[in-house]
Amino acid sequence: MKRILLVVAYDGTNYHGWQIQQNKETIEGVLNRCLSALLREEIQVIGASRTDAGVHARGNIAVFDTQTRISADKIAYALNVRLPEDIRIQESKEVDGAFHPRHCDSRKTYEYRIYNAPFAMPTERLYTYFTYARLDIERMRAAAAYLAGTHDFKSFCSVDTQAQSTVRQVDEVEVSRQGQLITIRVTGRGFLYNMVRIMAGTLLEVGRGRIEPEGIPRILEARNRSAAGPTAPACGLTLMKYEFL
Amino acid sequence: MKRILLVVAYDGTNYHGWQIQQNKETIEGVLNRCLSALLREEIQVIGASRTDAGVHARGNIAVFDTQTRISADKIAYALNVRLPEDIRIQESKEVDGAFHPRHCDSRKTYEYRIYNAPFAMPTERLYTYFTYARLDIERMRAAAAYLAGTHDFKSFCSVDTQAQSTVRQVDEVEVSRQGQLITIRVTGRGFLYNMVRIMAGTLLEVGRGRIEPEGIPRILEARNRSAAGPTAPACGLTLMKYEFL
Repeated sequence: MKRILLVVAYDGTNYHGWQIQQNKETIEGVLNRCLSALLREEIQVIGASRTDAGVHARGNIAVFDTQTRISADKIAYALNVRLPEDIRIQESKEVDGAFHPRHCDSRKTYEYRIYNAPFAMPTERLYTYFTYARLDIERMRAAAAYLAGTHDFKSFCSVDTQAQSTVRQVDEVEVSRQGQLITIRVTGRGFLYNMVRIMAGTLLEVGRGRIEPEGIPRILEARNRSAAGPTAPACGLTLMKYEFL
Repeated sequence: MKRILLVVAYDGTNYHGWQIQQNKETIEGVLNRCLSALLREEIQVIGASRTDAGVHARGNIAVFDTQTRISADKIAYALNVRLPEDIRIQESKEVDGAFHPRHCDSRKTYEYRIYNAPFAMPTERLYTYFTYARLDIERMRAAAAYLAGTHDFKSFCSVDTQAQSTVRQVDEVEVSRQGQLITIRVTGRGFLYNMVRIMAGTLLEVGRGRIEPEGIPRILEARNRSAAGPTAPACGLTLMKYEFL
């Protein structure tokens, strides 16, 4: 028996998120089905991040146990042949049998992408959130600086969380603009449910002028979901990478 | 009666190209149908570039005549409400009644985008051509320099052309790389059928080492389609913009 780690990229547009559900196509469901067919054993993957419906990934992580004699690095190639083209394994390798992607220290990087122009751009629509509202990047940057650090992010967490503690360490929140594309890049150790999308929704309100950058500390202190901005739409969010520490 | 110019952006993935065809969804067909419904008159647009099936645009041009009293600049907003989300008007304005987008001097910019990595990336698959082949950018740049200028591009034209002359002026061919993304940006006055895709297919062969950069002048001199590389796939091509001179 060996434990294999997969780096999984996907276009989340046509999936009901990562986590397996009856009668609904999910990333986990497709991986289990294609791996079981490839390896001719019953495979159940464990995902690092159970992304929501519509969220994309360039580097989510899945692990599974197998008795296969196919060498670990070849599994990526063999599996990609069976997967639909909106899911692609980027790497496969053997890891320690005790390795669990949710029970070890890791750093994740997300990008929330906004297409900001008078009119939507069809070739950007699937992987960005479109708004024609004027956004002041400097205000968004000033607000982002208040979000970086170790804080209680209870205001930035959907009410139906199961998390015990809502304190999280965010290493970096960076706002950049290239033409019509605004990217909010967030790196941190663990995130609460919907945390990056609520951060993005709040930074959008700051960019629009509806929240002051200096208002962020008060939003954090409130420890109340209603103090923060709305949850930005899923299609703008991409899980970029995992680093295990 | 007034003549209106539209700047049209689209994701070509789900269309059989620009030009109207029976029982097939085309950009021209959708524009005619939505404009006729909006303005309550029979509208037939004239396109600047009749892009092929699968090719994308950020700035194709369409003109049409109308008796509407809706102000020219408002047509973009009203039409976008009716269009499917993979077609979006970027601008609408009144132009001279004699203006014809194919019978006037213009400069067009295309981008051919290549995703070059060991594995395909799902969120890039619709708007790039994927290859895992190692590509040498410096070789591609050297070859691109030979393509810029006024040449007989007969070797870079699909055999079923109706063009009288195959001499064209290409102002710029620029090859750049950002991470896994290689962009071939071509600006010129008029292009032959499939010319940019054959240029891209030829530069790909140069990047792979199958054609020498110094071989480009001989390919041009051959005036024979079979001397050049293959026609690169449609999904990598985007018509970026038109400038009328």
